[in-house]
Amino acid sequence: MVNETQHPCSASSSSRSDGGSSSGSESSKDNSRCSTPVLDADRHERLREKMRRRQEAGDKWFSLEFFPPRTANAAVNLISRFDRMGAGGPLFIDVTWHPAGDPGSDKETSSMIIANTAVNYCGLETILHMTCCNQTKDDITGHLQKAKRLGLKNIMALRGDPAGEEWEEEVDGFNYAVDLVKHIRNEFDDYFDICVAGYPKGHPEAESYEADLRHLKEKVFAGADFIITQLFFRPETFLKFMKDCQAIGITCPIIPGIFPIQGYHSLRQLVKLSKLEVPQEIKDVIEPIKDNDAAIRNYGVELAVSMCRELLDSGVVHGLHFYTLNREVATTEVLKRLGIWKEDPRRPLPWAVSAHPKRRVEDVRPIFWASRPKSYIYRTQEWDDFPNGRWGNSSSPAFGELKDYYLFYLKSKSPREELLKMWGEELTGEESVFEVFTCYITGEPNRNGYKVTCMPWNDDPLATETNLLKDQLEKVNRRGILTINSQPNINGKPSTDPIVGWGPSGGYVFQKAYLEFFTSSEIVTALLKVLKKYELRVNYHIVNVKGQNITNAPDLQPNAVTWGIFPGREIIQPTVVDPVSFLSWKDEAFALWIEQWAKLYEEESPSRMIIQYIHDNYYLVNLVDNDFPLENCLWQVVEDTFELLN
Amino acid sequence: MVNETQHPCSASSSSRSDGGSSSGSESSKDNSRCSTPVLDADRHERLREKMRRRQEAGDKWFSLEFFPPRTANAAVNLISRFDRMGAGGPLFIDVTWHPAGDPGSDKETSSMIIANTAVNYCGLETILHMTCCNQTKDDITGHLQKAKRLGLKNIMALRGDPAGEEWEEEVDGFNYAVDLVKHIRNEFDDYFDICVAGYPKGHPEAESYEADLRHLKEKVFAGADFIITQLFFRPETFLKFMKDCQAIGITCPIIPGIFPIQGYHSLRQLVKLSKLEVPQEIKDVIEPIKDNDAAIRNYGVELAVSMCRELLDSGVVHGLHFYTLNREVATTEVLKRLGIWKEDPRRPLPWAVSAHPKRRVEDVRPIFWASRPKSYIYRTQEWDDFPNGRWGNSSSPAFGELKDYYLFYLKSKSPREELLKMWGEELTGEESVFEVFTCYITGEPNRNGYKVTCMPWNDDPLATETNLLKDQLEKVNRRGILTINSQPNINGKPSTDPIVGWGPSGGYVFQKAYLEFFTSSEIVTALLKVLKKYELRVNYHIVNVKGQNITNAPDLQPNAVTWGIFPGREIIQPTVVDPVSFLSWKDEAFALWIEQWAKLYEEESPSRMIIQYIHDNYYLVNLVDNDFPLENCLWQVVEDTFELLN
Repeated sequence: MVNETQHPCSASSSSRSDGGSSSGSESSKDNSRCSTPVLDADRHERLREKMRRRQEAGDKWFSLEFFPPRTANAAVNLISRFDRMGAGGPLFIDVTWHPAGDPGSDKETSSMIIANTAVNYCGLETILHMTCCNQTKDDITGHLQKAKRLGLKNIMALRGDPAGEEWEEEVDGFNYAVDLVKHIRNEFDDYFDICVAGYPKGHPEAESYEADLRHLKEKVFAGADFIITQLFFRPETFLKFMKDCQAIGITCPIIPGIFPIQGYHSLRQLVKLSKLEVPQEIKDVIEPIKDNDAAIRNYGVELAVSMCRELLDSGVVHGLHFYTLNREVATTEVLKRLGIWKEDPRRPLPWAVSAHPKRRVEDVRPIFWASRPKSYIYRTQEWDDFPNGRWGNSSSPAFGELKDYYLFYLKSKSPREELLKMWGEELTGEESVFEVFTCYITGEPNRNGYKVTCMPWNDDPLATETNLLKDQLEKVNRRGILTINSQPNINGKPSTDPIVGWGPSGGYVFQKAYLEFFTSSEIVTALLKVLKKYELRVNYHIVNVKGQNITNAPDLQPNAVTWGIFPGREIIQPTVVDPVSFLSWKDEAFALWIEQWAKLYEEESPSRMIIQYIHDNYYLVNLVDNDFPLENCLWQVVEDTFELLN
Repeated sequence: MVNETQHPCSASSSSRSDGGSSSGSESSKDNSRCSTPVLDADRHERLREKMRRRQEAGDKWFSLEFFPPRTANAAVNLISRFDRMGAGGPLFIDVTWHPAGDPGSDKETSSMIIANTAVNYCGLETILHMTCCNQTKDDITGHLQKAKRLGLKNIMALRGDPAGEEWEEEVDGFNYAVDLVKHIRNEFDDYFDICVAGYPKGHPEAESYEADLRHLKEKVFAGADFIITQLFFRPETFLKFMKDCQAIGITCPIIPGIFPIQGYHSLRQLVKLSKLEVPQEIKDVIEPIKDNDAAIRNYGVELAVSMCRELLDSGVVHGLHFYTLNREVATTEVLKRLGIWKEDPRRPLPWAVSAHPKRRVEDVRPIFWASRPKSYIYRTQEWDDFPNGRWGNSSSPAFGELKDYYLFYLKSKSPREELLKMWGEELTGEESVFEVFTCYITGEPNRNGYKVTCMPWNDDPLATETNLLKDQLEKVNRRGILTINSQPNINGKPSTDPIVGWGPSGGYVFQKAYLEFFTSSEIVTALLKVLKKYELRVNYHIVNVKGQNITNAPDLQPNAVTWGIFPGREIIQPTVVDPVSFLSWKDEAFALWIEQWAKLYEEESPSRMIIQYIHDNYYLVNLVDNDFPLENCLWQVVEDTFELLN
């Protein structure tokens, strides 16, 4: 006979049917439905569940620790680092808490805002550290409420360093991390996943190693979900600690903290702070090469790799936590050599998803913000619901204003002088603007020998996918079709395709060809004549800065331009050309001419007036070729337009 | 310069942007969104808007009048006629009101229920006639409320025939149609579209032709939206009437009522009732051939065609209303010869949509009811929301019970004796059941020489699309894979494809291969072994009558198996394999063995016990091949299963 398999959602219905009558359909009446198609379990699980799932599957993982930067510029760079290191697939990152640096404030350098940016804008599972000593209950509750509001779901509960040398316990205050753990569970129930610190050699201030283990057990029994350890220098230190923890009944995950030695001074500083002793065999190697940074880093990488290998081979370690010191090279190399850096070209969706719990069902976005996803997230942060399944059902089309173009995580990574070199110290006419666009596309240096690696609409070099269109794009930009967004048509490539693939394996992805550009009103006039010939095949929206709007979109409906078909699922259509959102995007797209480019030049200067002229007189155009199985006709549309003009 | 084009939804946003600032995005903040993708404008417009749109587009149209049948059997036949004549594309049908026949009751022969069935189950725009004389205000309001509740949106407001020969006006009562028009507008505001009757020769009881025109004007000014005329015999009669109406200020549409003469007696009867005089030139032709039905019908068709041509050629007539007398042949022939019978193979969706206003956004259904759409509509009639865009978001999965398998519009059109001839007077074993399934697929006569043109799960012969799979289906049915539903895979055929196409033109339609069948537990055991090899490629659900349920559907999510990509729209995915609904369907599918087949035989008879055995022991299986671009692997799955068994 056939075995009965139980599935999460079917359990109740199948058992009810078993006992029920054979006709009628009561059996399905109060099934709870899985109301959201789960494309990616990672978006729906909490951190402790992800950890458990990885462990059960035997997948090794890693996590990365960062501290908040001192300056706004450093914050911009740290966020780029989050994006780059996020590509390696950390299970989470964590951001330390610096009581002296106003960590709960809204400053771009605060722990709170850096963690917020990591979750919401970089889509990373994030743990926010929090210390409790010398703080009032109200302050702490306030921080936790704010963290929750921002979408943070995990807290590392720490005591923190007391203010003076001598320190006395406050009655009813927070004296130990365990007080903070209890407070979080009391006030926020099970909302947060809580992590606590473990000391493989015992906390330096503890009476004894055994006493410290008992404190750790208290923290776990008060509600902590897992433990991350202080750094250590020998694998056996950790393995003994782990055994000792288990012996006294600590069963939650214990994650070793790995510190790849990256330099003589940073090591000395850390050792001083943590009151750890560096083993003699390490000192013996380091002292003779202490002035050779490269040599020390190489040694540090070797040492970390060998220690991590031993830990992973032990069979009891499933994840490794790295103290990065906000640096990329050493940690990335260790991870790559261990084979756990997984630059997975497979994206769950064609755009980077946010890790805010409110956005976990989000699976449709307008294509316009493809190169500015952080701006999109910012401008939709007030939405209560996110479009899911279909854009047309989205409840709120109201986009927040983008007043501050220098919002720190949207700021160009390049300083003004560099931008001037790329985009021209002095513009001589519209043609010199065409040249800048063309150089960005081709990757060739401009007439002054500088490569154009970013544009006001895109802070990064051209996407791999856009490279497929390079030759065509170059041709049209030279002639004043100033492209800012495009995608080729795709007729059913495997979802695992390294360039255009996304979503679970076994599926097929599709795209309609898309082209978006600024151009002059002369070209628009000719273009409109040409578009008549193409009728329904090409949908267009043409708008100028004043909002004059020309379109052939039926009933202003959105047009799905990216979609995927997967085994056992409904259709996913993550990108649409939405005529209504386009009007919000055009405000942003036009404003970037002024905010990012024109303002590089003196007021009243000819260069500035050229950009201002383009801003005031050009049109923003988008074109979709609906016939995705045929050869992309948009190049022909542009060709026909130029022909008509000649 | 470029001209500014206004679009319905963009009007406000573009004018607001004109005057607004050039940055920020206020302009789109309170745009009202078109929240539902409009696949087919017909589903969203009211009748008077449809009429206007057709007239503006210069499209000629027709409508059909029916009267309620006397018996339940006749009702079943009338509903089939609705389906067949609905295929010709009438703008609407109307159902007359017979005060003597309890027209507002729940009897299957009442005007109300026939109109309800036309709207909800046949998807036809429908006008319900209603008469008012000799009725109380409360009765009338009750009828109107019920009509509204059932989803009826149009009323033909009539006086009706007074009960006796002599008739006195009731004070405060409903004496004329105009009283009913006013009452509807008072009590139901603009909810209903209202139609009134016009008399091209004047109402027989009116003081004069002119007085009758004034009455008509009163009805229109009281709130009627359009006029349908009494029949007439000469086109000039109608054209003069129309001119006279316009002369006194009647501007609403006036639709000529066309009566194709179908027989001598029906003509005489109608003439007597309507107090019309048949012109001498017609009498001269008819009298000599009055006993030759075919000759009279031919003459009637000729006459109607020539009159309709003259009306349409006049340029003032856009639609023609046909008095069908519940017959098909003559009217259909007139319509075909006029070229306005439009058997459009293009369906808005792959399944027949319902015209109930509540269901106008519905665009996803489970595939299981593909051959029993009326049952699906019946079992979901209590739903408040209908799935739109995605099945997964559907709020209610609760299917109503289908207790009465003889619900009149679900009743088999074939009587018991005929079913016995098709399905076997006497069954000798499971193999004789296999034979019935096989004969249904092949269209070959069974061993007693009868063709099997219907099955308990499908009251119609095999769909054209299924014919594509005929050879394969025959092979597997012979061996005990008893198929009840299937579709081939389709990898992007034009939406205008005559067999598998649906939706607006210019699009592409897709399907995953689907196969659903009953089979024995031996075959299921082998099948499950085979399915392991296919992993994610094939999704399956296997269930027996007791509800034992085996599936590999991820998280019990629905699998989209039909979808379409259209110019300027989001993806439409009208058919899903939904694991939760499948459990409701299985109750119905298993019950049909007993209700439709087993009960044809005496209790305890061997034939009945064979069907009962199958009902109790077989499994209902569905299979989806997710790899739609490749050759359908489901036949290989079945082949492998048989091989394993041998």
